[in-house]
Amino acid sequence: MERLRALAEKVTNWGRWGADDERGTINFITPDVVRRAAACVRRGEVFSLGLTFGAEGPQIGQGGRVNPLHIMTATEARLGADPDAPRYSDDVVVMPLQCATQWDSLAHVFYGGQLYNGFPASTLTAAGASRNGIDKQGAGIVSRGVLLDVARVRGVARLAPGTAITPDDLEAAERAQGIRAERGDVLLVRTGHITVFTKDGNREGYMRQAPGLGVACAEWLHRREVAAVACDNNAVEVLPFEDPTLPLPLHQLCLRDMGLTLGEMFDLEALAADCAADGTWECLFTAPPLKVTGAVGSPLNPLAVK
Amino acid sequence: MERLRALAEKVTNWGRWGADDERGTINFITPDVVRRAAACVRRGEVFSLGLTFGAEGPQIGQGGRVNPLHIMTATEARLGADPDAPRYSDDVVVMPLQCATQWDSLAHVFYGGQLYNGFPASTLTAAGASRNGIDKQGAGIVSRGVLLDVARVRGVARLAPGTAITPDDLEAAERAQGIRAERGDVLLVRTGHITVFTKDGNREGYMRQAPGLGVACAEWLHRREVAAVACDNNAVEVLPFEDPTLPLPLHQLCLRDMGLTLGEMFDLEALAADCAADGTWECLFTAPPLKVTGAVGSPLNPLAVK
Amino acid sequence: MERLRALAEKVTNWGRWGADDERGTINFITPDVVRRAAACVRRGEVFSLGLTFGAEGPQIGQGGRVNPLHIMTATEARLGADPDAPRYSDDVVVMPLQCATQWDSLAHVFYGGQLYNGFPASTLTAAGASRNGIDKQGAGIVSRGVLLDVARVRGVARLAPGTAITPDDLEAAERAQGIRAERGDVLLVRTGHITVFTKDGNREGYMRQAPGLGVACAEWLHRREVAAVACDNNAVEVLPFEDPTLPLPLHQLCLRDMGLTLGEMFDLEALAADCAADGTWECLFTAPPLKVTGAVGSPLNPLAVK
Amino acid sequence: MERLRALAEKVTNWGRWGADDERGTINFITPDVVRRAAACVRRGEVFSLGLTFGAEGPQIGQGGRVNPLHIMTATEARLGADPDAPRYSDDVVVMPLQCATQWDSLAHVFYGGQLYNGFPASTLTAAGASRNGIDKQGAGIVSRGVLLDVARVRGVARLAPGTAITPDDLEAAERAQGIRAERGDVLLVRTGHITVFTKDGNREGYMRQAPGLGVACAEWLHRREVAAVACDNNAVEVLPFEDPTLPLPLHQLCLRDMGLTLGEMFDLEALAADCAADGTWECLFTAPPLKVTGAVGSPLNPLAVK
Repeated sequence: MERLRALAEKVTNWGRWGADDERGTINFITPDVVRRAAACVRRGEVFSLGLTFGAEGPQIGQGGRVNPLHIMTATEARLGADPDAPRYSDDVVVMPLQCATQWDSLAHVFYGGQLYNGFPASTLTAAGASRNGIDKQGAGIVSRGVLLDVARVRGVARLAPGTAITPDDLEAAERAQGIRAERGDVLLVRTGHITVFTKDGNREGYMRQAPGLGVACAEWLHRREVAAVACDNNAVEVLPFEDPTLPLPLHQLCLRDMGLTLGEMFDLEALAADCAADGTWECLFTAPPLKVTGAVGSPLNPLAVK
Repeated sequence: MERLRALAEKVTNWGRWGADDERGTINFITPDVVRRAAACVRRGEVFSLGLTFGAEGPQIGQGGRVNPLHIMTATEARLGADPDAPRYSDDVVVMPLQCATQWDSLAHVFYGGQLYNGFPASTLTAAGASRNGIDKQGAGIVSRGVLLDVARVRGVARLAPGTAITPDDLEAAERAQGIRAERGDVLLVRTGHITVFTKDGNREGYMRQAPGLGVACAEWLHRREVAAVACDNNAVEVLPFEDPTLPLPLHQLCLRDMGLTLGEMFDLEALAADCAADGTWECLFTAPPLKVTGAVGSPLNPLAVK
Repeated sequence: MERLRALAEKVTNWGRWGADDERGTINFITPDVVRRAAACVRRGEVFSLGLTFGAEGPQIGQGGRVNPLHIMTATEARLGADPDAPRYSDDVVVMPLQCATQWDSLAHVFYGGQLYNGFPASTLTAAGASRNGIDKQGAGIVSRGVLLDVARVRGVARLAPGTAITPDDLEAAERAQGIRAERGDVLLVRTGHITVFTKDGNREGYMRQAPGLGVACAEWLHRREVAAVACDNNAVEVLPFEDPTLPLPLHQLCLRDMGLTLGEMFDLEALAADCAADGTWECLFTAPPLKVTGAVGSPLNPLAVK
Repeated sequence: MERLRALAEKVTNWGRWGADDERGTINFITPDVVRRAAACVRRGEVFSLGLTFGAEGPQIGQGGRVNPLHIMTATEARLGADPDAPRYSDDVVVMPLQCATQWDSLAHVFYGGQLYNGFPASTLTAAGASRNGIDKQGAGIVSRGVLLDVARVRGVARLAPGTAITPDDLEAAERAQGIRAERGDVLLVRTGHITVFTKDGNREGYMRQAPGLGVACAEWLHRREVAAVACDNNAVEVLPFEDPTLPLPLHQLCLRDMGLTLGEMFDLEALAADCAADGTWECLFTAPPLKVTGAVGSPLNPLAVK
């Protein structure tokens, strides 16, 4: 915790956008940034970066997280008494808000009794997060997406579980790809690890260990002033943790100290293949969270438009 | 039903995109259309057109639809055994997929034992929609949004419940606003009715009756080849139905015969005010459905970027 | 359906307890019967006949039925601000009402547009069963339980899937065991089939096929005027159906025509072993349904007291 | 907490039934006690002591507890392809396990990091209670029920909210009614408070304040060796708490220290009226919990048979 607090001092954004701010680094997405993002649309092609939400999802029950339960409540319900009447179907979903592709809200992790921007942990109750809930990011998240394909740059199909990505890795990818993450961009980091689930069908292998960002990336992310970072693993950061006594350090530094939201389980395979083919590693990235009131995360279908 | 079948013959798109098509008029959104949409971003301003998802939602229990139940499953759970350990929160949602702002899937209504493009109704089971599910629209829906503010053009704050909007109304709005809905656009129709709920807090008034598109609009929508149509009421079409013996006729013609998806409970108030102020009634419209496998609708947070 | 209607005429109880009756054969449990049941308590031993409700349950997804989802909503929530404050835990369950040991309500199946006692099928809506719901059996079900161990009488550990139990089987068991099912009794029929799930862990084998009562038992059950019948398989009746064109015939005759409720997935193993040991095949049977308003079934923990 | 710990020392049953015991005072229900209970059945009349489970329930959202959500998943589903085919209905429930009439499990509250019988709090995880879960009480709870009608003995329709019932009150009721709570009995205490909800329809009035057992009753309950205690209020104990700094003291002493389970929101009105009429204040009490694996409470339909 000592080390975490020391790092936190270096990267904190508390107060940067006012004492009432609940959006954090999404504030970097100014109208200028949005215009720059729209200008990335050149071919008019759309990529869905989201997993499907259903029984086929990646969850293995960790921390009570299960795959979505989709319940049909009507399949051939009649609209009227006539046996030939038109019909309708309807349905309900039961799901952990972070069961597949998702944004963390800034209320998802904390320490020292305080959430991002100093809001007390007591704002988190059975009624939800009255501060820093995902609903506070409703008008986002639209920006330029910059894909750094660390696996490809390292020349592997996918990084090995436990591989900690460093700032050097990110900068090597920038150089190799000829792009640079700027203020307000959404950083998309590809490790290839998602194929453990999507291609190999190995849920355990996907969820229990993963390559991902090392804690050293926190300062780099802070310096670059990116608006958000998303990855194809299940926690953005590397699993197991670099320091076994310090769980989820990047979560704490990003969400709680920087106010920088994390996107998890993004499927970057098709986008990365396309970027490799055309040599363009930027896109219009649009990923509006579902505005579930007081929620600490949101399921998602992020889109990249090139 | 006779009249419905006669109209259906005029507007059907079955087979237009092949015997296996499950996307319908979303196929009108070609790369050209996407590029034109991106070009609508001039100021870089983002508008969320979605209601929040929570106990405060609009549902009154009709057809078993309730407002979302948001369940916190952790509020101060410890990451490790140390009493000072970092914490996390987590949550679950239970919700009808069409409980607030949403897309209908092309499997949501049908008649004559067939869904859009002729798929048999037997493809709808307790396991979900194996055909025409909302997951089939995963790579969408990104296009140009064209807002027709029928209420404003008629000079009222909101149209009266039961008012059937006609093709003449839509064209009058086009003329007054200096814009025209083209192939591949997403048409956004404002009635102002959503303020019955959002301003007056009158759920019953919002849900039980509404102004909306009359059945005569079906042919107009077909002719214009729009990709989708969304409205600020709860069913796109007018309530009560023009012909009391024919429930949800526009749903049937749009979803089942044309393969044209409907967006419901879109909050167009802020966007419309902005458009009236700057005289620009088009936007980049991005509204990716949540890819719930086999679902017949999807909750949504649609964004308009100007 | 012809044959079903012919049988239905022979066993119908419609009107027997008045035009408003929603309890059916539970009406056979008069105070006399309850007193006789209490007199069965000789040793004071209690047997739970219920499966547990959890992820380990028997469901395999048929008809959308899944095993219960148990969600912890608090595990160490503090009662007050003091770090040493007392704590509490809390939880939520999501479950199909017929996912494990359960009663069917008299609204669970029907044909010809009418439920038990002639109530129209339109009383079944998205809001639940306004007639014949399981909540109407709230003051029950307490009676004498009579266990007929058909497997044991036939000298097998369990009957083979597809074996149709006949009235002769039931009477042979009565004779062998020295007991007779009387008016108002709850009949417990053991096939041993539940061990396919509980001992072998074979969900598919338990759910897809089963020994069970043949349709010929309907008249016998009617003649004996039992209050309810429960079995250790998942549908009381034999699977596959004796006549493949007539699904769930015993359900229809019992629930819809006789108003005789069915108990499914009762674990009779320990009780049967005890009865075989002491030669006493009757018990005080107490199995109150959960009074879920308008529900068409109820999860259950039935008890037998000897 | 000091005072709580001092009281705890006096009433603790840890180790009394062995180091592995998870049933607590239910162990007092020996076969003798069950036989005595069965002997209470004289007239053969059955009373349901449970509230219904549905949207009409008592919950007001405290601590995230809501009323059950009952979802119909089929209302007229066909069994086969024939339009005249038999039909079935089916349903799902979503509910807090303690949303209406219910048993607390011995894992529901704790302090000092230990549950009943010394099991560590770490046995409570997102996966449920691996120790002291309600499923451990599966073979119960059947015993003699002894109703003490404190309201009636005090000559009021219902006790005022905030009234702390004392051991003297309980003994006065025993004397007035001519009955005595013995080892193994289930004590039913009537305050009349449930009518605030059931008759007046005042959920807030029912849930926020209540008459109930004062903390002084802990030693009395311990001395009498009752198996369980149930009440018609929502927490058994008095609300607000006698000492505002010590929340739910009786919960802690009963559940955590004595291993004595609590029954809440029991509707004792009809039973009490009957007992007053015939002068008999005992019954066969049968209230099997639903065996939800690892659950910390169970919804219930308790029955009293006289």
